Amino acid sequence: MRKASIVSIGNELLSGQTTDTNATYLSDRLLSISIPVVSVYTIGDDKDAIIRAFNLACSEADVVIATGGLGPTDDDLTRQAFAEFLGVELQLQDELLQKIREFFACRDLQMPDKNKIQAYIPAGAEAIANNLGTAPGIMVRVGAVREPPLLIALPGVPSEMKQMFEESVLARLQRFAGGQAVAVRKLKCFGAGESAIAEMLGDMMQRGRNPLINCTVGYGVVTLHIIAAAKDNEKARQMAENDEKSLRNILGKLVYGTGEQTLAEVVGEKLARTNKTLAVAESCTGGTLAKLLTDIPGASRYFMYGWVVYSNRAKVSELGVPADFIDKYGAVSEQVARAMAEEARRKAGTDFAIAITGIAGPAGGSELKPVGLVYVSVDSNSGCETKRYNFSHDRDFIRLRAAQTALNMLRLQLDID
Amino acid sequence: MRKASIVSIGNELLSGQTTDTNATYLSDRLLSISIPVVSVYTIGDDKDAIIRAFNLACSEADVVIATGGLGPTDDDLTRQAFAEFLGVELQLQDELLQKIREFFACRDLQMPDKNKIQAYIPAGAEAIANNLGTAPGIMVRVGAVREPPLLIALPGVPSEMKQMFEESVLARLQRFAGGQAVAVRKLKCFGAGESAIAEMLGDMMQRGRNPLINCTVGYGVVTLHIIAAAKDNEKARQMAENDEKSLRNILGKLVYGTGEQTLAEVVGEKLARTNKTLAVAESCTGGTLAKLLTDIPGASRYFMYGWVVYSNRAKVSELGVPADFIDKYGAVSEQVARAMAEEARRKAGTDFAIAITGIAGPAGGSELKPVGLVYVSVDSNSGCETKRYNFSHDRDFIRLRAAQTALNMLRLQLDID
Repeated sequence: MRKASIVSIGNELLSGQTTDTNATYLSDRLLSISIPVVSVYTIGDDKDAIIRAFNLACSEADVVIATGGLGPTDDDLTRQAFAEFLGVELQLQDELLQKIREFFACRDLQMPDKNKIQAYIPAGAEAIANNLGTAPGIMVRVGAVREPPLLIALPGVPSEMKQMFEESVLARLQRFAGGQAVAVRKLKCFGAGESAIAEMLGDMMQRGRNPLINCTVGYGVVTLHIIAAAKDNEKARQMAENDEKSLRNILGKLVYGTGEQTLAEVVGEKLARTNKTLAVAESCTGGTLAKLLTDIPGASRYFMYGWVVYSNRAKVSELGVPADFIDKYGAVSEQVARAMAEEARRKAGTDFAIAITGIAGPAGGSELKPVGLVYVSVDSNSGCETKRYNFSHDRDFIRLRAAQTALNMLRLQLDID
Repeated sequence: MRKASIVSIGNELLSGQTTDTNATYLSDRLLSISIPVVSVYTIGDDKDAIIRAFNLACSEADVVIATGGLGPTDDDLTRQAFAEFLGVELQLQDELLQKIREFFACRDLQMPDKNKIQAYIPAGAEAIANNLGTAPGIMVRVGAVREPPLLIALPGVPSEMKQMFEESVLARLQRFAGGQAVAVRKLKCFGAGESAIAEMLGDMMQRGRNPLINCTVGYGVVTLHIIAAAKDNEKARQMAENDEKSLRNILGKLVYGTGEQTLAEVVGEKLARTNKTLAVAESCTGGTLAKLLTDIPGASRYFMYGWVVYSNRAKVSELGVPADFIDKYGAVSEQVARAMAEEARRKAGTDFAIAITGIAGPAGGSELKPVGLVYVSVDSNSGCETKRYNFSHDRDFIRLRAAQTALNMLRLQLDID
């Protein structure tokens, strides 16, 4: 099987200013075409360090992808390092210069002199078109005789790098990959922790098993990755699919989706498919739930009204929560959550309404009502369901976890209908 | 000046599952104590690869920090690689075993046999306490005679790694650093792009200048990093401060804060300090603005009411937008934005109200009203200010940028008062 190595270039990656998301993206895409990444070398804008990293990467991988350092300024040295590593000169390519001039002309700008350097690439190398910026990429087969490694340089700006990789690099690498095929499936789960799920799956998560099953966790969502390797795509796909079926059997309702699906997306699809509508009333989550819902394009088909009743007065004036409920039970109580959900649904005239009230912290907790205590109500024409939760960790976590949990309650209700 | 290298260990870092935020965190912290990071080696859970990376890192740095691979399962091999790299055996440390047993006992759990391995560390090395999990860290001076390098291994779980670094590693490295002192200041700007700001600053952003000034960009916020190097802390601090003053003179109102401050935080502080209150009415941003405001602990002091009037009916029924405004001018119009802001302020009884209406896309745009068109109104007792914006990029960007721009409009009004 072919292997890849990534060389991430840029002082900003070593000073804590920027997190290297390009390496994550490329690793994921390369694995999907059966070229696992075996190493990532991150270095600054330093010609010698770049050449050293190219040597190391080429010694252990068949494909080396470098990102960053192709800009027009003096501190961008990847182009020069690339040429020096190959032992060739940089050559001006007229078509590239023309394209860069056009880039500026379209924006009614004169091309600064500095940008001319971006039209130079190492002799014998191939340019990779950049439709979003001025820096073309560079691709070359290192060594005229032996086949690999293939050395590729792309800009560090994520949007440019991604478009160029998808449009000009991916298909080439796919042909180059040959060998074993890999199929990856992701199952998204909500409602149980990582260790509980691992226990349910038992031997299936054993290291060295094929398909390999491992998991990552974020704000209550457990993502199971099924990675199947076989001699061809069809076989790998089938193995991954069989494992997906087994996992779904074991985990049941805990599985809410696949791939990159979010809870808001799955809930939105169910609402849209059944022509149902939704309103939300939020206190401690302060708009987080509405934002998650409206992150999804087309949410206006089912999401109608949202209230952020952050003050007690807002709860009373906008959602008719009886003032004596707040005095008697407190703003964070089953009674207030329920009153919020019922009135939100009535006022909005929607099929469902969700209400959330709780204590996100860090202040405002008490022994009886600690930070992390959250009530969630889901109201529909079959009645109002209210649940009490105790979330831990910090303010951000509690708020996002509460909103996700509310979406999950609605998802389970929508599954029954 | 001492230099550092980071070795990030874990298969999940090479499969696209996890982005390496530990390296970013450590780079930032190490730079703050004058130990710049010169390289990051990212490899899988593979003993030989770990040893190779230790060798490379030790050849170019005085401090090597490894993260990951200290867990209890068979695929965690950092401990073994560490010992093999040093040419020593792993030794059981009774106190460590005791601490791990207690970790489980506190949670009413039996210690699984697998966890015993975490009580072993290389002979001659020192354990670093972990108060959040079961994996202790490891620290050793490589080579008995020559002084550096210092090799340190920490768990990969970010919360554990950070606490251990701050509590047990940072002070030690600070003493070890000696040499040049570095002071870092960050200025946060909003209201002009990166290139416009670079043009205003001219020579100050020149490469090689001391203090070095560079910038990063995210959703309209331009962060200027001032990095001053001098022979002592006081001198470095003074140089950075002088540059901050110069930058503030040049950039004026574009500078909204320092360090990690967000626009919502700065606006919130100004509101709290002057005892003013705020309500928001959102259409296309769908709760994003309310969420940004309530991300800040204590937001309930000034943030009172929020409406997410995602449907036209909600705009009419909740915020009294005249139905014929929507027919005549459209839901995305100056008139509707203004009506939303005025009624939100009236109903909430607050000093300020912000309203946002726009087209976040990807669908819903037209030639006259393209995706990215957004109206923002800020209403107060000195009147209602409405501005029209055309944002580009995708839905997420347009929504976040619109909410940030609204906060910035309010910030500038608060500055006048």
